[in-house]
Amino acid sequence: MFSSIDYEYMAQALRLAEKGLYTTTPNPRVGCVIVRDGKVVGSGWHARAGEPHAEINALMQAGDLAQGATVYVTLEPCSHHGRTPPCAGALIQAGVGRVVVAMVDPNPQVEGEGITQLQQAGIQTDIGLLEKEAHDLNIGFVSRMTSGRPWLRLKIAASLDGKTALNNGVSQWITGADARRDAHRLRARSCAVLTGIGTVLADDPMLNVREVETPRQPLRVVVDSTLKMPPSAKMLLEEEILVVTASGDHGKAENLRKAGAEVLVLPPLDGRVDLARMLDELGKRGINEITVEAGRGLNGALVRLGLVDEFVIYFAPLLLGDRARGMFDLPELVEMGERRELRIADVGMVGRDVRIRALPVE
Amino acid sequence: MFSSIDYEYMAQALRLAEKGLYTTTPNPRVGCVIVRDGKVVGSGWHARAGEPHAEINALMQAGDLAQGATVYVTLEPCSHHGRTPPCAGALIQAGVGRVVVAMVDPNPQVEGEGITQLQQAGIQTDIGLLEKEAHDLNIGFVSRMTSGRPWLRLKIAASLDGKTALNNGVSQWITGADARRDAHRLRARSCAVLTGIGTVLADDPMLNVREVETPRQPLRVVVDSTLKMPPSAKMLLEEEILVVTASGDHGKAENLRKAGAEVLVLPPLDGRVDLARMLDELGKRGINEITVEAGRGLNGALVRLGLVDEFVIYFAPLLLGDRARGMFDLPELVEMGERRELRIADVGMVGRDVRIRALPVE
Repeated sequence: MFSSIDYEYMAQALRLAEKGLYTTTPNPRVGCVIVRDGKVVGSGWHARAGEPHAEINALMQAGDLAQGATVYVTLEPCSHHGRTPPCAGALIQAGVGRVVVAMVDPNPQVEGEGITQLQQAGIQTDIGLLEKEAHDLNIGFVSRMTSGRPWLRLKIAASLDGKTALNNGVSQWITGADARRDAHRLRARSCAVLTGIGTVLADDPMLNVREVETPRQPLRVVVDSTLKMPPSAKMLLEEEILVVTASGDHGKAENLRKAGAEVLVLPPLDGRVDLARMLDELGKRGINEITVEAGRGLNGALVRLGLVDEFVIYFAPLLLGDRARGMFDLPELVEMGERRELRIADVGMVGRDVRIRALPVE
Repeated sequence: MFSSIDYEYMAQALRLAEKGLYTTTPNPRVGCVIVRDGKVVGSGWHARAGEPHAEINALMQAGDLAQGATVYVTLEPCSHHGRTPPCAGALIQAGVGRVVVAMVDPNPQVEGEGITQLQQAGIQTDIGLLEKEAHDLNIGFVSRMTSGRPWLRLKIAASLDGKTALNNGVSQWITGADARRDAHRLRARSCAVLTGIGTVLADDPMLNVREVETPRQPLRVVVDSTLKMPPSAKMLLEEEILVVTASGDHGKAENLRKAGAEVLVLPPLDGRVDLARMLDELGKRGINEITVEAGRGLNGALVRLGLVDEFVIYFAPLLLGDRARGMFDLPELVEMGERRELRIADVGMVGRDVRIRALPVE
């Protein structure tokens, strides 16, 4: 169904889509290439919510040359009026000859309707070219559209013996500069960065993106069941910070609000923040991807609840010994059968450190 | 100095040398290729101590054709009468034209003398081709010849969160079949496998080579400071087991000897086995490579004393949590500056697991 030329142009569209990696939130990253007579006559990508979609940018470039052309687009063209008019209609109006789509839009408002519209207009549509690549690029958007929750990526920086901090809490720095920059890339592509109050009190981090260029900072979220967050925390020096709590202490909440934070009070679950409910709330706010950078307490809680979609672990070539702090506070196991199974998605070097990406096994 | 043809034949000689990987102990692995008029006229490797060296095997094959030929040998030909006559003399007698040597013999009884003899006989000698590869192949022999101690490789099988056993001691199995087979390859190439009494009491292991074919089993060594080793331990069902102790309890020692073990009593250091002294003793017995498969106690002690030359860590894609056992019992650190620095030598997948090889930074 697909020729090598199709692959080439779709790969080009995917590279264009990637340009929106740090900016399209809450929208998906989408790229589009329009080809006529073996020549690219238009190309575009979606940059920011409220701005034109990839197809519209490409059609504007192509002008009349779009007529009879083949359109490569990494996500099904939309069929609904959102902040911008539907792309399927624009493609029909431009008289394009064929539309190649990497993946169907998981958005329940679209989900095949864009393709149906194109087909009803007599346009040849071919679906599923480089689908996995397109899916991975919008893993968070897919997650939110299908489950209502963001894709949760848990990032850990550890020594080769699996330790993330000394016993006294000191954790800076375990990994090298290259791994830290790589981790900032994860922050930059995330809609939100999540941490626990323990990390805030121990490290007083900013949790913003510094090591790579980005026009947008992710929302920073702190899980703080009893509102221990000090109004002097460095995180509060910058905007867009959400403190999620199970505490009913209005005075403390008010102090944090005055210091610039939004405070979200959720009904407590066993006296703590209901993490699953929190993710539902973040999904409702359009959060696609979350990167967690926390200690063993919050890490362990997220693992126990089965809320982690992806583990990214940087192993630095050094040893800290068994008295240092580990990765996951989990209940003691008494049988190997109770262990939590993952699978390795990829492994490689980042500077002097090893990076392992692992996914839970269902 | 070296042509691409030289590289090709030396690589061939190295592959021959590797055939002795499981058997040459305490001798080095050596391969030899004899080339005349662009054709291999003889090749050989050293198989077992007491049997002919690689050069002799190759010369026997070449016969008269050795005259004027080029000899590729992975280690400097010996100059001394050991269990067999010196190879340098045999090469001179055969009238070879040129000898290409990967590395000088680190054996103080040779150390350049073989090369000198060849040169004095008017034979062209070229040294250092694929030296690193030759060196790595005999890493244990080099260690023993230069420091008197074996090369100590510490092997660990851990979960992705750095745990080697449940809190109750259960550790079977963390890694998958492929990683276990790979670890048996490490055992097979080792002259000795070392463990601690804790592992013997917890797992009652055999510590022999089962997952790969080998004509020789490594010596199994147990560090057992107070002679807790039960005469019923499974390890005693097979030959070649050395229990190293700091205990003066003659009765216990005698029971173990009756059960088939050799018991080596060393003067205690802080009431325990003097591990550095033990390695000296093993070096004197011709042990080149040791693979350690122990728990956090012995692992930590070896790291503290700086006795580990190489770490091989298999990470299985699973989580056991912080209440499980870690890799190294080390004193608590209070500053990052106290950490032990390593460098990653290589990383890759072995079946479903990740294998990381790391070396200490001097």
